[in-house]
Amino acid sequence: MVSHRFQSYIKTNRARIDQTLERLLPPADEEPRLIHEAMRYSVFAGGKRLRPLLAIAAYEIAGRQGDLILPPACGLELVHTHSLIYDDLPCMDDDDLRRGQPTNHKVFGEAVAVLAGDALLSLAFECILGRGMANPSPEATLGQIALQVAHAVGSRGLVGGQVMDITLTGPDHQITVLETAYRMKTASLIEASLQCGALLAEADEATRLALRQYGRALGMAFQITDDLLNVSGDAKKMGKATHSDAAHQKATFPAVLGIEAARAQAEDWIGQAKKSVLGFGDSAWFLIELSDYVLDRQS
Amino acid sequence: MVSHRFQSYIKTNRARIDQTLERLLPPADEEPRLIHEAMRYSVFAGGKRLRPLLAIAAYEIAGRQGDLILPPACGLELVHTHSLIYDDLPCMDDDDLRRGQPTNHKVFGEAVAVLAGDALLSLAFECILGRGMANPSPEATLGQIALQVAHAVGSRGLVGGQVMDITLTGPDHQITVLETAYRMKTASLIEASLQCGALLAEADEATRLALRQYGRALGMAFQITDDLLNVSGDAKKMGKATHSDAAHQKATFPAVLGIEAARAQAEDWIGQAKKSVLGFGDSAWFLIELSDYVLDRQS
Repeated sequence: MVSHRFQSYIKTNRARIDQTLERLLPPADEEPRLIHEAMRYSVFAGGKRLRPLLAIAAYEIAGRQGDLILPPACGLELVHTHSLIYDDLPCMDDDDLRRGQPTNHKVFGEAVAVLAGDALLSLAFECILGRGMANPSPEATLGQIALQVAHAVGSRGLVGGQVMDITLTGPDHQITVLETAYRMKTASLIEASLQCGALLAEADEATRLALRQYGRALGMAFQITDDLLNVSGDAKKMGKATHSDAAHQKATFPAVLGIEAARAQAEDWIGQAKKSVLGFGDSAWFLIELSDYVLDRQS
Repeated sequence: MVSHRFQSYIKTNRARIDQTLERLLPPADEEPRLIHEAMRYSVFAGGKRLRPLLAIAAYEIAGRQGDLILPPACGLELVHTHSLIYDDLPCMDDDDLRRGQPTNHKVFGEAVAVLAGDALLSLAFECILGRGMANPSPEATLGQIALQVAHAVGSRGLVGGQVMDITLTGPDHQITVLETAYRMKTASLIEASLQCGALLAEADEATRLALRQYGRALGMAFQITDDLLNVSGDAKKMGKATHSDAAHQKATFPAVLGIEAARAQAEDWIGQAKKSVLGFGDSAWFLIELSDYVLDRQS
């Protein structure tokens, strides 16, 4: 069970995030309409907004308040949405449903889906680098954040993890190889989300390190629970197909270690995540509750 | 006929660009190898390096010398390579050959091609934002360059132009619509390349404006001559299929206006390009010769 404070924090901040996304995305009736409709379709398909929420939380833990964090935080959501559109493509996981709705390429066709992903990634960098900010300073900091995000997306981050995801099949893999793939595929962008908030708040080195460790651990747990849901989750609640990993013979934690041991690994990472932010005391309450939520989530 | 000075400038700077690209791209044997091989395959497939050459030329016209321009200039080439990989995909132009070699997806498969494009775009931002620079200052300027490039790539630039490219078919189009498509698809990144050099050199407003106007005009001419080569060029010299625009019923300048009038338009844009940089005197010699070269090119 999550607390009232947690629910209320998420509700308030999701509203801020959605308002900012609305403002940052080109209007649906701006030409060429097809691309702007396709971009908006996936961005407003009901995501959890996990990455921007983490950026905001980190910004606040590092002692800042206010709206300056919103455009770069939303940039992180655009990066994530772009990666989901690509994940679902026929040449990748070939999924028809995402969050209970037809996937982007099912609605707009493959060419537009690829271009929409591309445009969202570019727009993400615009948002991180100052677009939509009344006062886009300090510019050097924004550049540092963008550099970290670019690294988290590229062949040493998300994209590299995706390549491992499609090439690692069958049950015989070292757990360290899987950990590398998970770190790249999922944890890198979550880590970067916390760094985004910390950097923009000009946090000291110790704060940045603690938040980075939290992000990495949370990201690892998040991917393992995602895999567990793919094995035993409720497709209706999740709004997407289950058992697809098994069908593709993907090498996941549950496939390689078994469900019980994979669950234990997720718990272990959540323990590490909590430990990383102990030093912040109550100001880290949201990160602590979020880690419990990630472990127990049903979707 | 191009001058000896022109040939020598291109040769020298292509070598600098290629050395920098070699250093900036992850090694082919770094895991996951598949993605790094795919990225390198397209980057080192023999491009003209037009965009980095323009960035270097603008940097020099604005009074600077040295290697600081090389990483962001190479970032522009990575953006361009990423867009070529996507152009060639089965869901886009479905081309089998590029620069006389099999296209990326023909060698590595569609999934890896999409991911390689994605990774090149991310790496481009890393290069622009300071990766590979001994002294990545001034960071605020790098952020401004990255912001312009992100805008040039997104739905209001390259991607938007691509969408128009695949949706505009048949011969009945206003020339102003085509001009918008060409500006977005081709001229925006060429404009951004000149801005990259000008911004890094901290050029004054008048210099930046002149270089931007040159870039736009050169970009328009470049796309029109590209279309003319698709109609009447030598496929062997070009290393890619000709007549594909007609096969796809694409709305190009030659298809809408006819070959002669399209050629006249290209000449007109080249005239405007030259006029824009007249004020620089002999220091703009390379840009002047380049514009003649673009008009007369056979590939």
